[in-house]
Amino acid sequence: MGDNLVYKILKSHLVEGTIETGKEIGIKIDRTLTQDSTGTMAYLQLEAMEIDRVKTKKSVAFVDHNMLQQGFENADDHKFIQTVASKYGVYFSKPGNGICHQVFLERFSVPGETLIGSDSHTPTAGGVGMLAIGAGGLDVALAMAGRAYYITTPKVCKINLVGKLKPMVTAKDIILEVLRRLTVKGGVSRVFEYGGEGVKYLSVPQRATITNMGAELGATTSIFPSDERTLEYFKAQGREEDYVEFKPDEDAVYDEEITINLDELKPLAAKPHSPDNVEEVEKIGKIKIHQVAIGSCTNSSYEDLMKVAKILKGRKVHKDVSLVIAPGSRQVMEMIARNGALADIISAGGRILENSCGPCIGMGQAPGTNEISLRTFNRNFYGRSGTLTAQVYLVSPETAAVSAIYGVLTDPRELDVDLTVEMPERFLIDDSMIIPPAANGAEVEVVRGPNIKPFPVNKPLGEAIEGKILIKVGDNITTDHIMPSNSKLLPFRSNIPYLAEYCFNTVDEEFPKRAKENNGGIIVGGNNYGQGSSREHAALAPLYLGVKAVIAKSFARIHKANLINNGIIPMEFANEADYEAIDLLDELVIEDIHANLEKGKAEVKNLTKNYSFEVNINLTEKDIKVIKAGGKLNLVHSK
Amino acid sequence: MGDNLVYKILKSHLVEGTIETGKEIGIKIDRTLTQDSTGTMAYLQLEAMEIDRVKTKKSVAFVDHNMLQQGFENADDHKFIQTVASKYGVYFSKPGNGICHQVFLERFSVPGETLIGSDSHTPTAGGVGMLAIGAGGLDVALAMAGRAYYITTPKVCKINLVGKLKPMVTAKDIILEVLRRLTVKGGVSRVFEYGGEGVKYLSVPQRATITNMGAELGATTSIFPSDERTLEYFKAQGREEDYVEFKPDEDAVYDEEITINLDELKPLAAKPHSPDNVEEVEKIGKIKIHQVAIGSCTNSSYEDLMKVAKILKGRKVHKDVSLVIAPGSRQVMEMIARNGALADIISAGGRILENSCGPCIGMGQAPGTNEISLRTFNRNFYGRSGTLTAQVYLVSPETAAVSAIYGVLTDPRELDVDLTVEMPERFLIDDSMIIPPAANGAEVEVVRGPNIKPFPVNKPLGEAIEGKILIKVGDNITTDHIMPSNSKLLPFRSNIPYLAEYCFNTVDEEFPKRAKENNGGIIVGGNNYGQGSSREHAALAPLYLGVKAVIAKSFARIHKANLINNGIIPMEFANEADYEAIDLLDELVIEDIHANLEKGKAEVKNLTKNYSFEVNINLTEKDIKVIKAGGKLNLVHSK
Repeated sequence: MGDNLVYKILKSHLVEGTIETGKEIGIKIDRTLTQDSTGTMAYLQLEAMEIDRVKTKKSVAFVDHNMLQQGFENADDHKFIQTVASKYGVYFSKPGNGICHQVFLERFSVPGETLIGSDSHTPTAGGVGMLAIGAGGLDVALAMAGRAYYITTPKVCKINLVGKLKPMVTAKDIILEVLRRLTVKGGVSRVFEYGGEGVKYLSVPQRATITNMGAELGATTSIFPSDERTLEYFKAQGREEDYVEFKPDEDAVYDEEITINLDELKPLAAKPHSPDNVEEVEKIGKIKIHQVAIGSCTNSSYEDLMKVAKILKGRKVHKDVSLVIAPGSRQVMEMIARNGALADIISAGGRILENSCGPCIGMGQAPGTNEISLRTFNRNFYGRSGTLTAQVYLVSPETAAVSAIYGVLTDPRELDVDLTVEMPERFLIDDSMIIPPAANGAEVEVVRGPNIKPFPVNKPLGEAIEGKILIKVGDNITTDHIMPSNSKLLPFRSNIPYLAEYCFNTVDEEFPKRAKENNGGIIVGGNNYGQGSSREHAALAPLYLGVKAVIAKSFARIHKANLINNGIIPMEFANEADYEAIDLLDELVIEDIHANLEKGKAEVKNLTKNYSFEVNINLTEKDIKVIKAGGKLNLVHSK
Repeated sequence: MGDNLVYKILKSHLVEGTIETGKEIGIKIDRTLTQDSTGTMAYLQLEAMEIDRVKTKKSVAFVDHNMLQQGFENADDHKFIQTVASKYGVYFSKPGNGICHQVFLERFSVPGETLIGSDSHTPTAGGVGMLAIGAGGLDVALAMAGRAYYITTPKVCKINLVGKLKPMVTAKDIILEVLRRLTVKGGVSRVFEYGGEGVKYLSVPQRATITNMGAELGATTSIFPSDERTLEYFKAQGREEDYVEFKPDEDAVYDEEITINLDELKPLAAKPHSPDNVEEVEKIGKIKIHQVAIGSCTNSSYEDLMKVAKILKGRKVHKDVSLVIAPGSRQVMEMIARNGALADIISAGGRILENSCGPCIGMGQAPGTNEISLRTFNRNFYGRSGTLTAQVYLVSPETAAVSAIYGVLTDPRELDVDLTVEMPERFLIDDSMIIPPAANGAEVEVVRGPNIKPFPVNKPLGEAIEGKILIKVGDNITTDHIMPSNSKLLPFRSNIPYLAEYCFNTVDEEFPKRAKENNGGIIVGGNNYGQGSSREHAALAPLYLGVKAVIAKSFARIHKANLINNGIIPMEFANEADYEAIDLLDELVIEDIHANLEKGKAEVKNLTKNYSFEVNINLTEKDIKVIKAGGKLNLVHSK
């Protein structure tokens, strides 16, 4: 029985445990990436590990999130990251060099290697055959310090691509189709491995669109094989030496398999407010649109923007539409600036934004009240655009550009234009905005602005967990709900005390006050609690407010890891019906918690209502040690 | 005795009064412009005038300030302006089309005509020989409604340019030299008319840099003749038919004359925190810099950016410097995107921002803590960059670009590079982002978002002015002090109740609370009170808080007009020494105020300290009527 891609990488990187579905393993991490909104915290944690130099093959610190820079906080964070990176041996990609995932793919990805990144869209690099996983900042810091990264051995689900995409149907439509079928919970505990004859028709950037947005399935990651198309990409990036052919064994086995017939796909859109609320564009109909936003780590490659430029060339954006475009990297930006495509976009009436995450993370370009925005991004969670009343649809660049011209959502197949874009023989290669670390880190002084505050650290676990229910939320609560990430709060990612005041702000403004008044307590959640981003802040802010445990129907992977890393116990209702019985401010107690952790289950007494219910505590041996220590950092220090 | 340019225009546009220095006159306004941060209010006021269609030759509504769009407020304002403009016959320049002054110069300026604009840098159009004046939104609305604009006949000061600029010395250095000599108060009650043989060496964009930043002198406006260079510009803009030769009479007389020898000028910089704190770059020395920002309505023309591109080509921005560049208009942006200059800028490591005001108005790119920022802008007021601890230097694009490479403030003459940039024979002309108004305004529905609140309207003047001193401030208080205009507040320019909570925020956070607790009262200021922007909000917010009068040593022109327009009485200490005696919360009363207005002076009783002092009330007959009515809008309605 042969190995699939995932098992090949797990085997070659295994440092602890046995590779068996559901079992915890530790793997060696070759490379790491951070971005600025999670990076400051990750590097503060790295500093706490008291090493001299990172132990990875290569670690890269990007700045792509906080680029509007409305106060000193952002520039201070950038300077902190630049100096701390230089000190510890990390490459620094300057603001303006591009979005971390796009730049990593272009300049740092290597087939067959492992990557973790403090951003949930780290799987983008799966497009070249990396095992690329989003993780909390602390896990990334630990990996930089040379420690293993622990995951539960995932199921491997093959997505078998057959046939070939029709014109104006795109890689974005493939991943939207997967989301339509599997939903945002469909990827939990899984890696999606793409294969089949359809793969060869997809360029690396197209594959990266798919692995990128695989994050929305709740998957551990997604991966493509590396092949001739990958080689072609590495050659064009002047990195032929980094290319490795990386394919599954002929007789590779998979836990699951799904087939998608590319011939049958049509342009799709994810309707408000979830990436899995997918329908065919032509069925949604010609609704009037007000904004079109093209870019983000999902769809901002050279190929994407060249196609957009071809659609826009000689045409004009509708007078009632604002079209904004953020190229994915400086490489993309300079190439389209040199070949005239950017001028064509400008001529059509496109507004050019910086090479950054921009509107995808709510950093600007919030739509107007009740407006409809088409976006080539990966998430359309409620409120994420910055406008609560906005209706955001996720579409391909082709659908976005064609619709921008007509002023209504339009199936791009209505426009007859040749969109053939050849991979350039050679991308424009210039790494001058990637600053190598200092040869001698000891000489570097780390610059720390006044908004950079120490992060909260938990205490070792006591005898019992006691506390009131501080908030009770429903299903699919995202990290955007837990720790909102709008343009007003993102600049404060280095300042947990400040951020904590906005914890659960869009759900219940009273939460921080209530948490403080009750000396902390317990959160109750529904299914898929903590989906979305990798931000550790969704654990750090509750920790700061005294949250001791979260009882939910189920958890999203990265958030669960972040809770554990910070000593907050994730518990699952043994009977989902018990969710209903519990109310805000009910006082709970779980006695003898140490023994219960080992048992993997516990009895929770509801003192207010005078009854008990059972919870499962699905933790590995390792997790239990972490929880008992009051978080991973305490454990590291105790060794 | 011949006429200077100013008198020629005043004479041809006079509708009321006698042209005599210091006397009030009413002039006909040919054209108006608004931008979005003052425009929403201006169009709300226009609506209140109950006309069907604007009466000007051409009125244009621009969107260039609130372009970050962090919440629904901005996009809502843009939509309001677009629809209200369409209804009332105003051209709408879409977001992304460029900065109002740059686009107006390119596409709408006409020598010999009059322009008022709800932005203090409206004088930019003086570069082609327009009498272009910044005004409050209400005055612009009145002009759109066909009413005369009233000014005090200014002194006309000739600035005689002799010689020719040396390489790397620029138009920016000329206006910095004028500021060095005359200070930010030196232009009060004056128009600066440029002449002399040196004029012919200056292109229209260079002249516009000078007239633009003439606003910092406190001048009513600045103006250049139109000549062969102007014709060349109009030809290249495809607007030869709009060109009129416009020169002063040979024997024109001036009230004052200053000579600047261009041969002797060196690169200059305005040091923190005032545009008149000017010193030679080489004398300031090679201080380490952290940010360079190129753009704004002062220095963002095609010519400016081509020179910047020539400096940057083949070079790299210093690793510790963030270089941001915002082209002035879509015309500029597309031209440099087509000719490779933009690619050269990107290649050097420049970050490209939208064609908008951007960091000049604190909308993004705030420097880090204690960082030094070189900017090609027109204002370096304390805190305006968004970072209170930042040190902002105002320089030419040449100084900025050269310094960005070296990482230290650098005299650009140190770099030997040919910066010859020819005016293109034909600019790239495309007005597709300028939306003409609807043919039938009645059919247009004005879209009004929830953040757009009614503006406050004053009551007719009572018998006496009574109240406590709510705040006492020093000299040169800017409208940025009175009504801060940072990125957090600018989106709320349509919502005076919200804005008022931040009135005087950077000076005294307690002011709004104190004003409310005391049922309004009186502001005490020093010299040049209200310098800076044209924002009417610096009068509307105090009005909302119940401010009845401002007693200052002297006033800046536009702000004084805005106070009067809103029925707040500007008074000047007859003896400046009386400023010292007065304290916060002293209770003042001015009895028989109607008679005192006519007399032009009043006795102020300080009830708290039990003494009296005298103030001058320098108002025209017209002003007095406005004040008595409780503001201009009441007066309009009473007719």
